[in-house]
Amino acid sequence: MSRVYCALVHHPVRDKAGQTVTTAVTNLDVHDIARSARTYDLARYYVVSPIEVQHVLVQRIIDHWTTGAGRKRIPERHEALSLCQSALDLQLVIDDVTTREGKRPRIVATAARSTLPREVTTFAGLRGLLRESDEAFLILFGTGHGLADSILETADVLLEPIVGAGDYNHLSVRAAAAIVLDRLLGAGAA
Amino acid sequence: MSRVYCALVHHPVRDKAGQTVTTAVTNLDVHDIARSARTYDLARYYVVSPIEVQHVLVQRIIDHWTTGAGRKRIPERHEALSLCQSALDLQLVIDDVTTREGKRPRIVATAARSTLPREVTTFAGLRGLLRESDEAFLILFGTGHGLADSILETADVLLEPIVGAGDYNHLSVRAAAAIVLDRLLGAGAA
Repeated sequence: MSRVYCALVHHPVRDKAGQTVTTAVTNLDVHDIARSARTYDLARYYVVSPIEVQHVLVQRIIDHWTTGAGRKRIPERHEALSLCQSALDLQLVIDDVTTREGKRPRIVATAARSTLPREVTTFAGLRGLLRESDEAFLILFGTGHGLADSILETADVLLEPIVGAGDYNHLSVRAAAAIVLDRLLGAGAA
Repeated sequence: MSRVYCALVHHPVRDKAGQTVTTAVTNLDVHDIARSARTYDLARYYVVSPIEVQHVLVQRIIDHWTTGAGRKRIPERHEALSLCQSALDLQLVIDDVTTREGKRPRIVATAARSTLPREVTTFAGLRGLLRESDEAFLILFGTGHGLADSILETADVLLEPIVGAGDYNHLSVRAAAAIVLDRLLGAGAA
């Protein structure tokens, strides 16, 4: 049984000037990251937003695919979306994982910036930790221009940024989440 | 200079019953795969659709980010979208790459199905080939339920499917393209 969870954070995240903002939920983020989470056998996928009306949107997407018309049309989407739930803030996510696991998960923050406020853990290092440890892990992905420094500074682990083939690092969060999960949990990865 | 190209194919692709169909262009496919292509230093990214009105849509998205209002708001998006162009069919893409490179590229088909019509090349095998060969490569991604068998059968290389942590393989094409490029070209991959 998987002990790896992930969350897509819409607050607190940075805007392009580095200010802390709240971003809007994007429909395809809910889908794509749920499908990636299911593919890499994660336990749950949380969509974190302090805006209550956005929870109605997320729940409508989930319902459409898990009990509504979408379930009949694309049944395998149900398996992915049923992993997904919304939460008002990160503490509620940590509380939910803690209740499910019986202890607090280790928090893994992700970031794309090359200049980060503290030492990072490599993909290989975290991959080894996930394999060897019997603890639960909660991997956080930031929307906008990434997770706020307050999260990067207080997480148990800060994962190194994805490096492509140059210095351009503006992947979509959907693509970045897929690559992170593949590097950490994929059968084909190192 | 990169000799790796990719194309997102909307025809001929399979529907869930295995019939050959044409899918509609999705806005975020244009963005996300352009950003992934830029991150992994691809030479060009083609959006292939036989529906002429869809080219107007793709061109409008490209223009918005390369010369329009979007360029000012998110300048780094320009670098990604300027790699992108639309094409009516796959032959025109092959012709364009052939003109740019002076010879025909090797065609790499991707697929998610575990049952495939011919032998596959592993990610490690293709990664080595990309490193050692001085040929150009064109990697094809299928929308819908994947590339039609006619493409899988005639491509120079059929890449093995992405395996996650189980037997669920319904990644979005945006996520799958990101993972494929990372496995083949990423600095952090094996």
